[in-house]
Amino acid sequence: MRAMGIDPGTAICGFGIVDSNGSRLKPVAYGAVQTTPDHSDAQRLVKIFDSLNELYKKYRPDVIGVEQLFFNRNVTTAIAVGQARGIILLTAQQASIPILEFSPLQVKQGVTGYGRATKEQVIDMTMRLLGIHEKIKPDDAADGLAMAIYALYCSHSMSLKRTVQL
Amino acid sequence: MRAMGIDPGTAICGFGIVDSNGSRLKPVAYGAVQTTPDHSDAQRLVKIFDSLNELYKKYRPDVIGVEQLFFNRNVTTAIAVGQARGIILLTAQQASIPILEFSPLQVKQGVTGYGRATKEQVIDMTMRLLGIHEKIKPDDAADGLAMAIYALYCSHSMSLKRTVQL
Repeated sequence: MRAMGIDPGTAICGFGIVDSNGSRLKPVAYGAVQTTPDHSDAQRLVKIFDSLNELYKKYRPDVIGVEQLFFNRNVTTAIAVGQARGIILLTAQQASIPILEFSPLQVKQGVTGYGRATKEQVIDMTMRLLGIHEKIKPDDAADGLAMAIYALYCSHSMSLKRTVQL
Repeated sequence: MRAMGIDPGTAICGFGIVDSNGSRLKPVAYGAVQTTPDHSDAQRLVKIFDSLNELYKKYRPDVIGVEQLFFNRNVTTAIAVGQARGIILLTAQQASIPILEFSPLQVKQGVTGYGRATKEQVIDMTMRLLGIHEKIKPDDAADGLAMAIYALYCSHSMSLKRTVQL
């Protein structure tokens, strides 16, 4: 089973794609769709729309994981994040890919086993679970990978083996 | 010149389409794209995407007006509004229709000449300027018409004649 996690943002949309086979996880691809402030919001959203569709076509994920709510950000940021999140939901639905929505806390808890883990601890555990040794850049891509892992975990297609502890 | 104003929302996306010819305004169409809570956010956004594209194809607006920011709503609402707003910006850009963004205050000020006008006063003036006598339903459609009027006003294609005063 293949999951794709996407971290919404107008400037940077991080993504990570992970395969599972029983309890084994394999990173497939990760990165970020980046847009520049030289372009209008509308132009940036078109770029995100086109890039996500290319990624779906290239990697054909079975499920897409995206975080549900962002309580700790302000209203202006929430609108910008919401706009990008709208494009993620739209494209996934148009491509008939099932969408899993979960909270940042669930991802943190699910990936590290500890709800109060720091961002760095989540990234560290994500790298260990996937056997990635070089630092994942940007952080948004690591977030995407963590969401992909959690989406696989939620899909019951695997039992997340905790051979590595923080 | 033909302007379309769109009021973003996941449940109701109000729209209004108005033609201008010098200082004369003519309502072309108004209404709302409505979605039901029975559907997922993603399904609702696909419906908005499809419906807006149909409206663009049918009415071929020269410009689309959309409000910029919503400071007075909470973060959860802001994300939902942002998601729908993302679809509006995306579809307008994909259809190569110029987008005008302005604040709710600018629309209020531009349409009624008074920045502290109530919502009812804006609707009333919108109806008078367009010669509409029956109550516009839903309110979101009236908001769309007000945005269309203001978009025409901003486009300098007309001088908004204030023959009617509140």
